[in-house]
Amino acid sequence: MTPEALKIHIEGIGQVARAASRPIARASTAAKNRALQLAAAALRRDQAALLEANQADLAAARGAGQDAAFLDRLALSAASIESMATGLEQIANLQDPVGEVTGLARRPSGIEVGRMRVPLGVIAIIYEARPNVTADAAGLCLKSGNACILRGGSEALRSNQIIARAMHEGLQGADLPKSVIQVLDITDRAAVGELITLKGLVDVIVPRGGKSLIDRISHDARIPVIKHLDGVCHTYIDASADVEMAIRVADNAKTQRYGTCNTMETLLVHRAIAATVLPSLCALYREKGVELRGDDAVQRLVGGIKPAQEADWYAEYLAPILAIRIVPSLDAAMDHIARYGSQHTDAIITNDWNHANRFLREVDSSSVMVNTSTRFADGFEYGLGAEIGISTDKLHARGPVGLEGLTSQKFVVLGNGQIRGG
Amino acid sequence: MTPEALKIHIEGIGQVARAASRPIARASTAAKNRALQLAAAALRRDQAALLEANQADLAAARGAGQDAAFLDRLALSAASIESMATGLEQIANLQDPVGEVTGLARRPSGIEVGRMRVPLGVIAIIYEARPNVTADAAGLCLKSGNACILRGGSEALRSNQIIARAMHEGLQGADLPKSVIQVLDITDRAAVGELITLKGLVDVIVPRGGKSLIDRISHDARIPVIKHLDGVCHTYIDASADVEMAIRVADNAKTQRYGTCNTMETLLVHRAIAATVLPSLCALYREKGVELRGDDAVQRLVGGIKPAQEADWYAEYLAPILAIRIVPSLDAAMDHIARYGSQHTDAIITNDWNHANRFLREVDSSSVMVNTSTRFADGFEYGLGAEIGISTDKLHARGPVGLEGLTSQKFVVLGNGQIRGG
Repeated sequence: MTPEALKIHIEGIGQVARAASRPIARASTAAKNRALQLAAAALRRDQAALLEANQADLAAARGAGQDAAFLDRLALSAASIESMATGLEQIANLQDPVGEVTGLARRPSGIEVGRMRVPLGVIAIIYEARPNVTADAAGLCLKSGNACILRGGSEALRSNQIIARAMHEGLQGADLPKSVIQVLDITDRAAVGELITLKGLVDVIVPRGGKSLIDRISHDARIPVIKHLDGVCHTYIDASADVEMAIRVADNAKTQRYGTCNTMETLLVHRAIAATVLPSLCALYREKGVELRGDDAVQRLVGGIKPAQEADWYAEYLAPILAIRIVPSLDAAMDHIARYGSQHTDAIITNDWNHANRFLREVDSSSVMVNTSTRFADGFEYGLGAEIGISTDKLHARGPVGLEGLTSQKFVVLGNGQIRGG
Repeated sequence: MTPEALKIHIEGIGQVARAASRPIARASTAAKNRALQLAAAALRRDQAALLEANQADLAAARGAGQDAAFLDRLALSAASIESMATGLEQIANLQDPVGEVTGLARRPSGIEVGRMRVPLGVIAIIYEARPNVTADAAGLCLKSGNACILRGGSEALRSNQIIARAMHEGLQGADLPKSVIQVLDITDRAAVGELITLKGLVDVIVPRGGKSLIDRISHDARIPVIKHLDGVCHTYIDASADVEMAIRVADNAKTQRYGTCNTMETLLVHRAIAATVLPSLCALYREKGVELRGDDAVQRLVGGIKPAQEADWYAEYLAPILAIRIVPSLDAAMDHIARYGSQHTDAIITNDWNHANRFLREVDSSSVMVNTSTRFADGFEYGLGAEIGISTDKLHARGPVGLEGLTSQKFVVLGNGQIRGG
């Protein structure tokens, strides 16, 4: 397609989505749930076709020399298709956020003012070649009353189209327009550039994927972006921490999974407790093959630890590597987090009431925790039911973003003839 | 200043604000209120100096050929200084949103998850030569625990500096750093360009002023903007409306004040009630000197009405002009609003329960109203106490933005040693 034709094509998709956003915004909860359930049934029925399409995607990706991690994210199985279908059914079971009115109260003028939760409108989701995101994101947008435009990595296009077909079948079975969910079939990368500048047609962009993708989209977008940047998460073991708890939680925060954004990347330890905690904790990490990098004080306390460089304090390793620093106070720990952290998730292990409270109030991260593992920062664990991502932005939605994060609130005003100044 | 030097200077201001954002975020409600009360007292005490500075600003602006409306916005009086001081005291009396924890609930894992309301961090406010905005915006940012950078129109600089001095006196009297409020004294317009690209140092931009200012800032900002664009507000008189109420409310919505963003600009009338309502309503408008522009049906019904052009349906007149259209149904009215409206404030006058509900749910505007005047769309009337502006954005804050809109929510997680997968 010429750049001109591409622009017109993407604008057309935006206009179709904008038009679809009105019927889906006013759709009943029953209709939306029915669409999700029918789509889940269609996915199960079409399992063989979806696996076949996925095999073709995988073969092409392999031929293009994609690495094992890439192929792993792209690959579907009978189990992962079942889990996609179950995911849609779970979204159907979540409470519908749309239409909820809160805070309705009478004002001195006699009018009643409250807020009604409403869909955002049109959401564009840009993600990598991970077909499960297609069902998941489409389901969340549908339930929250939004139209969506999905642009997954082109290597997953065959799989995504089968999934889209199932979603469309669900929509049509519930008498909803299939244009509520549009899956872009343009593999041209320039399509993304057009999509993220569709001001007035798209209300918000949700990029999901690696840092470079998200950085590029945030930079070029002319539309608000709900994004997740780094997860440089800290655990701070305070002087008063319970030693056994500190070791258990700090171990879990680092080693339960290495590649997730809520994994601890830097451990801060108060100097008064370092000698008690660090030797056995470091032994535990080493047993599990975690490479340790420490400041001078840590190196003096535990033998054979590599020196941490300035860059280590900023690092999101997403790997079995951990930076460790000994700090003289709670304030020093919070200063470290303010300077090097990414405002994702930070935890304190303490038995000091005042320190716990100060940490909760003063650490400016999307999740702040006391006496538990950073690994809990997750929409399911928080009870949101499902998540479209974890936001490290400060406006609109911070932390795990579920159905509520895909909605906004408008004011509703009820009167019986009141006039201003009257 | 060279562009280089300006960039370094503005970056320095951003860094100072970022540093000040931590102590103000954790400041006690008592300290913030004391700062506001002391600033109010200082403003009253310095009334003469402020009036003198304002006279100098006015003289310079007159010399530069500014028009009467401009001078009117710039001018202060003993009464307007008193109202500025009272405004700060009113902000002191509002509930502190910071630190409020909501929805704390235990999850199956044993952790407790809730949300804590927290300041946004650093807010930059860019506005025209209106000195009262300086006190108002600084007071709202202070109470909501944010550091702020204020950039008012350069013609008000002398007045703004006296106001800043009073605010600083308040901060220092409450043992808070005066750098919490910084008033830019650089008149160079390029300073705004630098300010709105201070990524990582400024969290949100609030532009206040004319459309061209807001458009330019939204376009160039590399930071989220809370903005107010057009106010093309509608009143729709439904077939079942009470005629006396419809006339009273539609009159008020247009004529109570012409220049405000919540003034009705287009009146939609159901064809079944047009002949009953329009002749007397139009007579009322004409008595008050409102110029009427109508579609063909309106022109046939009421003599001497100018034809409305396509551009009239999009117009925010901010003047005694009104566009009127007769529509065949509620759906046609809502279609008109969706197509031509600006998602600011729209009202239905009806006695039909189902129509009222559909209008409330389906009209996608920041305020939707039943049986009352669009003129009520205002932070004071809504009980927010004060407002920094009215947002026509969909993310984060819609409609009047008060203290809550200057905050965000983070997740707080309380445990006693829980680990994931444990």
